[in-house]
Amino acid sequence: MDIAQLAEKVIAGDRRALARAVTLVESRRADHRAMTAELMERLRGAGREAVRIGLSGTPGVGKSTFIESFGMMLTGQGLRVAVLAVDPSSARSGGSILGDKTRMERLSRDPKAFIRPSPAQSQLGGVARRSREAVALCEAAGFDVVLVETVGVGQSETVVAEMTDLFVLLLAPAGGDELQGVKRGIMEMADLILVNKADGALRETATRTRADYAGALRLLRKRPQDPEGFPKAMTVSAVEEAGLPEAWETMTELVGWRRAQGHFARNRADQARYWFREEVRHGLLARLDEPDAKARMAALADRVAQGEAAPAAAAQEMLESLGKG
Amino acid sequence: MDIAQLAEKVIAGDRRALARAVTLVESRRADHRAMTAELMERLRGAGREAVRIGLSGTPGVGKSTFIESFGMMLTGQGLRVAVLAVDPSSARSGGSILGDKTRMERLSRDPKAFIRPSPAQSQLGGVARRSREAVALCEAAGFDVVLVETVGVGQSETVVAEMTDLFVLLLAPAGGDELQGVKRGIMEMADLILVNKADGALRETATRTRADYAGALRLLRKRPQDPEGFPKAMTVSAVEEAGLPEAWETMTELVGWRRAQGHFARNRADQARYWFREEVRHGLLARLDEPDAKARMAALADRVAQGEAAPAAAAQEMLESLGKG
Repeated sequence: MDIAQLAEKVIAGDRRALARAVTLVESRRADHRAMTAELMERLRGAGREAVRIGLSGTPGVGKSTFIESFGMMLTGQGLRVAVLAVDPSSARSGGSILGDKTRMERLSRDPKAFIRPSPAQSQLGGVARRSREAVALCEAAGFDVVLVETVGVGQSETVVAEMTDLFVLLLAPAGGDELQGVKRGIMEMADLILVNKADGALRETATRTRADYAGALRLLRKRPQDPEGFPKAMTVSAVEEAGLPEAWETMTELVGWRRAQGHFARNRADQARYWFREEVRHGLLARLDEPDAKARMAALADRVAQGEAAPAAAAQEMLESLGKG
Repeated sequence: MDIAQLAEKVIAGDRRALARAVTLVESRRADHRAMTAELMERLRGAGREAVRIGLSGTPGVGKSTFIESFGMMLTGQGLRVAVLAVDPSSARSGGSILGDKTRMERLSRDPKAFIRPSPAQSQLGGVARRSREAVALCEAAGFDVVLVETVGVGQSETVVAEMTDLFVLLLAPAGGDELQGVKRGIMEMADLILVNKADGALRETATRTRADYAGALRLLRKRPQDPEGFPKAMTVSAVEEAGLPEAWETMTELVGWRRAQGHFARNRADQARYWFREEVRHGLLARLDEPDAKARMAALADRVAQGEAAPAAAAQEMLESLGKG
């Protein structure tokens, strides 16, 4: 594969080249990893900057419908939109594939949109590293907005927050002020809470739910990277396509403020450091999966299990065989 | 330090040598780690086998009082008892130091007992690796029972279960059947649930709580390593020293059955594999903390943060500098 040519085509906005590049990035083959590194290095200079939005919500809050409506609204404004997914489990979440095109039929046919489901991998860490590079690919390809969808109980939200500029939590209207079991950690991550389904019989409940969350958000400490009034809670209706322009306006307001204050660039720099360290740690541990090392590990583990060596001594032997640092 | 001599003294039951050995094992210095590996290798052949008991319970269940009473009961039967602690946080748990001698005054003066508080470290993984070796030290020193105390919300229980032969969960009597917010994962780990404070005004509540947990345990799938009737729930009173011989009898019954069925040895072998792998992974990642590597990491992270290199390419450069596997 000619990486220089692939990079050029991605930058030129060639969708098929982008799809091929994402496939390359998602591959676990060692030679593909090296090609990915070269590709990312070539795309680094494209000098494009998308708004990267993390979006989380448990199954049933209408995430697919929201992404479709919100995405169509953005493309209607002339913006190009990419949708990626970080699936925290190898088993698909709640029976649906995150980023499933059949659930966003209109958006997936929109020439200004690019939708990519989560890669099938067994480890969240692996999925996340690859997704982060896919985000950078879409950015280099000239997309204005990159939506990274996830669903989980905290861990996947954390890694998605490490690859996005702002984090949106989508919720369903709920009776009372039970706060839907949303973990405090996820609440603290959210820049914007959108209570969906503010339509028909649920409209009032949605309004109340919004007020409950707005109250809960006020109890959280204001973050230095937030302007007055953030984090914020709003209502939307994905099916009636209501509140979506206001939500987008709120997002751009926040991003604009952060850009002006330098928080935006600082956050991206911190994220780059984070992923660099993750890549190094993962690459180092991956040496244990190379065929030779794997065989030595297995043999030593057997000796340890049979009581012929203590774990620490066997580990030292293994580490020496891996070469000195 | 003469490691051969230290090993001999530990095996001979010299308490001061044991304390020195535990200190060595807990050290993070690279030369101490090498000495530890040699020490553990020398002790491996001592051929002694203690009953290793993991003990968990949230603050307020009377853990220290239980350990004191239970330990005194065991030493009263002529058994030698070691008490170690795995503290999941660098900040001490619930205001008390796990394994604090001042809270187990009688036991700490007992010549047949050895109490060691949790080492102060910031990472659970580090504490756990060292504690596991301290358990093996106590075993080699001829202790019949090694109690490993912890308190946590799951993670610390998991690592303690990886270094013990059976797991005991200590609970307080509670009204209703609320099950005290004990996580399902910890319940599933427990071989024996002891409802403490079955005395005075709480006696009846304790009896009811025991029944509730016995019911909950019946809903869990029976494990192949368990005889009929296990996992089990019992009541004890640490202050009245009631139910303790019965609890110990139940533990020895379980251990005896597992020994006879081969589960005991199989579990120890699996644990040894686990700790070997943990040592290797940790040792590999520790290379990033060596001064040279640390400086290179910092310099590359700066370049990545300034947008002069993509994370993957910088990671590859770092990995190459660490030598090939």
